[in-house]
Amino acid sequence: MKIPYVLAAGLVYATQCQGAVTLYGIVDNGYRYDKTEGSRPVHGLESSNQYASRWGMRGTESLGGGLEAFFVLESAISTDTGTEGGNRLFNRASYLGLSGPMGTVRAGRTTHLAFEWAPGIANPFGLGYGRAQLGTTFAYNDNEFGSGRVSNAIYYYSPSLHGFQGGIGYSFQVNGSELPGSSANNRMIDLALRFTGGPLGMVAAYEAVRGAAGAARPKVLTLGASYRLGRLTVNAGYGHLRQSSGTAFGVGADRSYSVGGSFDVGSRGRLLAAYQTASASKLDNWAIGYSHALSKRTSLYTFVNWGKTSPGPVPARLRQSQFAVGMSHRF
Amino acid sequence: MKIPYVLAAGLVYATQCQGAVTLYGIVDNGYRYDKTEGSRPVHGLESSNQYASRWGMRGTESLGGGLEAFFVLESAISTDTGTEGGNRLFNRASYLGLSGPMGTVRAGRTTHLAFEWAPGIANPFGLGYGRAQLGTTFAYNDNEFGSGRVSNAIYYYSPSLHGFQGGIGYSFQVNGSELPGSSANNRMIDLALRFTGGPLGMVAAYEAVRGAAGAARPKVLTLGASYRLGRLTVNAGYGHLRQSSGTAFGVGADRSYSVGGSFDVGSRGRLLAAYQTASASKLDNWAIGYSHALSKRTSLYTFVNWGKTSPGPVPARLRQSQFAVGMSHRF
Amino acid sequence: MKIPYVLAAGLVYATQCQGAVTLYGIVDNGYRYDKTEGSRPVHGLESSNQYASRWGMRGTESLGGGLEAFFVLESAISTDTGTEGGNRLFNRASYLGLSGPMGTVRAGRTTHLAFEWAPGIANPFGLGYGRAQLGTTFAYNDNEFGSGRVSNAIYYYSPSLHGFQGGIGYSFQVNGSELPGSSANNRMIDLALRFTGGPLGMVAAYEAVRGAAGAARPKVLTLGASYRLGRLTVNAGYGHLRQSSGTAFGVGADRSYSVGGSFDVGSRGRLLAAYQTASASKLDNWAIGYSHALSKRTSLYTFVNWGKTSPGPVPARLRQSQFAVGMSHRF
Repeated sequence: MKIPYVLAAGLVYATQCQGAVTLYGIVDNGYRYDKTEGSRPVHGLESSNQYASRWGMRGTESLGGGLEAFFVLESAISTDTGTEGGNRLFNRASYLGLSGPMGTVRAGRTTHLAFEWAPGIANPFGLGYGRAQLGTTFAYNDNEFGSGRVSNAIYYYSPSLHGFQGGIGYSFQVNGSELPGSSANNRMIDLALRFTGGPLGMVAAYEAVRGAAGAARPKVLTLGASYRLGRLTVNAGYGHLRQSSGTAFGVGADRSYSVGGSFDVGSRGRLLAAYQTASASKLDNWAIGYSHALSKRTSLYTFVNWGKTSPGPVPARLRQSQFAVGMSHRF
Repeated sequence: MKIPYVLAAGLVYATQCQGAVTLYGIVDNGYRYDKTEGSRPVHGLESSNQYASRWGMRGTESLGGGLEAFFVLESAISTDTGTEGGNRLFNRASYLGLSGPMGTVRAGRTTHLAFEWAPGIANPFGLGYGRAQLGTTFAYNDNEFGSGRVSNAIYYYSPSLHGFQGGIGYSFQVNGSELPGSSANNRMIDLALRFTGGPLGMVAAYEAVRGAAGAARPKVLTLGASYRLGRLTVNAGYGHLRQSSGTAFGVGADRSYSVGGSFDVGSRGRLLAAYQTASASKLDNWAIGYSHALSKRTSLYTFVNWGKTSPGPVPARLRQSQFAVGMSHRF
Repeated sequence: MKIPYVLAAGLVYATQCQGAVTLYGIVDNGYRYDKTEGSRPVHGLESSNQYASRWGMRGTESLGGGLEAFFVLESAISTDTGTEGGNRLFNRASYLGLSGPMGTVRAGRTTHLAFEWAPGIANPFGLGYGRAQLGTTFAYNDNEFGSGRVSNAIYYYSPSLHGFQGGIGYSFQVNGSELPGSSANNRMIDLALRFTGGPLGMVAAYEAVRGAAGAARPKVLTLGASYRLGRLTVNAGYGHLRQSSGTAFGVGADRSYSVGGSFDVGSRGRLLAAYQTASASKLDNWAIGYSHALSKRTSLYTFVNWGKTSPGPVPARLRQSQFAVGMSHRF
């Protein structure tokens, strides 16, 4: 429950429903058309086009002295079919933590730092708009890095100082439960720094995973910058994958690049465009999108994506195109 | 969250918890005895006897100009064992939409029109009371028609005009995700019209499914009418299944009939009785039920069903009887 | 939603959000180290150390005349990985019932009486603190007894009379759905009595399961007592398992003993220590724990457990040790 306000006789009284549980989410469904070279097109009603559909609970509790306890339980859902995502109830987040003047500590399953900080800065489309999302050619969200979310993790976020914030995290086992013997687990170290001040945004994130002896030890660096000039925001990004097992697109090392921008059309519209490419795996994507806010919580959107994709670990430059039109609603 | 009321100093102030999320549901558990000819009886604690047990979230947002955005996420549960229904989190509903003076558009997983409108008119027991539910001999809820719920669907509901309301819907794939090539999917077209005015209710619904080349193309028509005479309401229904694959009861075409009524006993009680039958699959059911409202949200119920059933695609007139007593609670 | 309070102009007004749904839960994550003789250690971030992580919905409705309807839907979750527990949505509870001056009736999936009443009296650690929980050497929570939770059950709880309360329950099938023929199901009868008055607590619970002909008919008796002397509370327990199938630790009969105590350190701390052992299966555990309340809802904890365990149905006295430090948060 969010804090509601009672307006009575000219006075405002804050009333709190329950300790502090907020039930929240996003439902996003739309028509989408997907065509990959060599296959028949897939079209129909799809979810999670502009934003990933989800529901969750979150809450905070003041402990005094500026200290706060908090938790998040967040579930991924496919709202076209009603199914849950990732074969687990709370695939998106399940953590608790403490927050205070010295920073924030988080423990549980959570987004890693590149996934959390980089897409919104390196790409106008962030994590949404189908293949326009940054992870289409960037590697930070490959399965090796928990697809962007890691279990069994402890994270520390520094306070923001002159616009700078740092983060450091460790996962004892990226996916699944811990196995006997530390070295049997896919352990991940995560480091990131970001700057947000005035019109400028910058981010650098680094994740490294170490598994069983002899297994690949993938590492990924993600850089991003954005600059706002009135109604226009420009974005650019760079990613560097090394020592990958190559299971995603058949390459052990890769470099990704993104450039794009967004433009506010009136008070409710936003036009977005971007290009991204990965050099070794030979993926790329051109994207144009438009979002129209019906309210703060509800938007209509449309987008077109086209470029080259690869159907798996064997690199193959197949043409792919995508079109969607739909609606997203937050609660 | 529903709107709570603050009573202070003789004044009533409405306060709203959060944007507009309502957490709601029904829990229904009771003792049930089921006997089918040739098998030993099954008895014990069963859920979803009078109403299907469920929990869900729903909300609306006013967009101005009479336009409203809305969403529903609704989960089926077996409250005797704690399990979720349909092997998916939100089996009952997961959709969003817009509603306004020109009608309502809904997109996602939802009930189809026969399932939504016909049972409450064609049958005093509607969708509940065990084998007394309309779908026992009617075919609109066969697996071919998504068991009454379709994924990947877009629906339009007209406004109500002089008591008449129309609906039209299309599902790109009734169950599961869309496959490459339109014709590989089980697509459904759905049309319905209903009238509700004074004591009279009428409904006509038609669903047609088209799958892969060579596959069956099942079609089902469902008609219903009800009339209220003081404390008594009488109901009648007719269903016509054609071109079915016959996987439900071994017949490609079938006609179903229902007749029954309900009688209000005092201000809290309701007595219900009905008969339904399907001619080709040779199913039938006699039903008597009673519901006693402890409050607006809580009821005690009991019912008896007896008739002929078929254990699957091979038609066989096996005697079946069913008895239940239990309690349902809405929240 | 719990009942919130509006404090305005020196007056307290109670306002109620929604009929009466409370969304609640516990998130508990911490670092844990587990070492069993002959295996490599397992360590990392684990959930449910002090309390089992969960989320749920519950509500009550007054029916007048002192009668109340209620329901609980409660989900077990592993908050280190985001997964649900027990392969079902509401593994912990899904029931409804009526409560009044003559007692309480509950129907659905619920904890059995030994699981609900005994651990908090027989053991300072109750159901938490890793291997310090009473069920480590006691058998009431063996798989034969539904691991402490039974489906398809009806329970009656008497009112409390001079500190005494009795309970009786029956499950038609401990786990899963009922099968044809009563005798094909694992039926459980459950009886318990407890006393709570002043400093003294006492409990006796008895569960007996009867399955298919020829199958084992396990029975378990659990006794417990606690006494509070100022800041100190002492606890003792006794368990007697008979006619077990021996699938848990290879023994058909066993006796368990527990002794321990807890000591309030200041207004926020609690120190706990206990020993428990099972004679035939040759399990035991020594436990020391400490909990520090940051608030009514949030605690930091640490504990150490060491003793003998058995990896399954073949008895083997393997040394096991466990250490944890973490945080739990209620909402």
